[in-house]
Amino acid sequence: MGNEQLDQLRDKLDEVNIQILDLINSRAEIVKEIGEIKEKQGAIYYDPVRERDMLNKITAKNNGPFEDSTIVHLFKEIFKAGLELQKDDHRKALLV
Amino acid sequence: MGNEQLDQLRDKLDEVNIQILDLINSRAEIVKEIGEIKEKQGAIYYDPVRERDMLNKITAKNNGPFEDSTIVHLFKEIFKAGLELQKDDHRKALLV
Repeated sequence: MGNEQLDQLRDKLDEVNIQILDLINSRAEIVKEIGEIKEKQGAIYYDPVRERDMLNKITAKNNGPFEDSTIVHLFKEIFKAGLELQKDDHRKALLV
Repeated sequence: MGNEQLDQLRDKLDEVNIQILDLINSRAEIVKEIGEIKEKQGAIYYDPVRERDMLNKITAKNNGPFEDSTIVHLFKEIFKAGLELQKDDHRKALLV
């Protein structure tokens, strides 16, 4: 009994994992586009004010079960990965 | 010109952030349910084989732009946060 329910929940978890994967990659595409525009403008990639603004908007909509602090931690990791991607693109552009 | 485009991309980013937030919290709800079943079964929460299996399923569907290694890093952080949530529930259950 418990095991069947467990299998169903795990299937659901696998589905949600893929949805999160797709969204994280969609987010990365947008971040890359923003990086390209900033590159043309000669602007710097990392903008702590904009990052704080994004985090405020995110925690304002957080209904749990994760605490705001956990959500902030996870999103900072996602932001960092996006920033690395922009820097990689920049490095490649310099090498062309 | 560039700035209008930038604003549009930022609005899109804010939307995607909230979608990721909602999915991460939905995921946490499923993880909590799984934790409750495992608790009744007296099973341990952390299952490295199941974690590896989830990561394999996720990277198999990864079409970038993030590298598999980045995706694995981000999901490990999400898994860790989920595990903490299960442990918190367990602690609370013990205190009742």
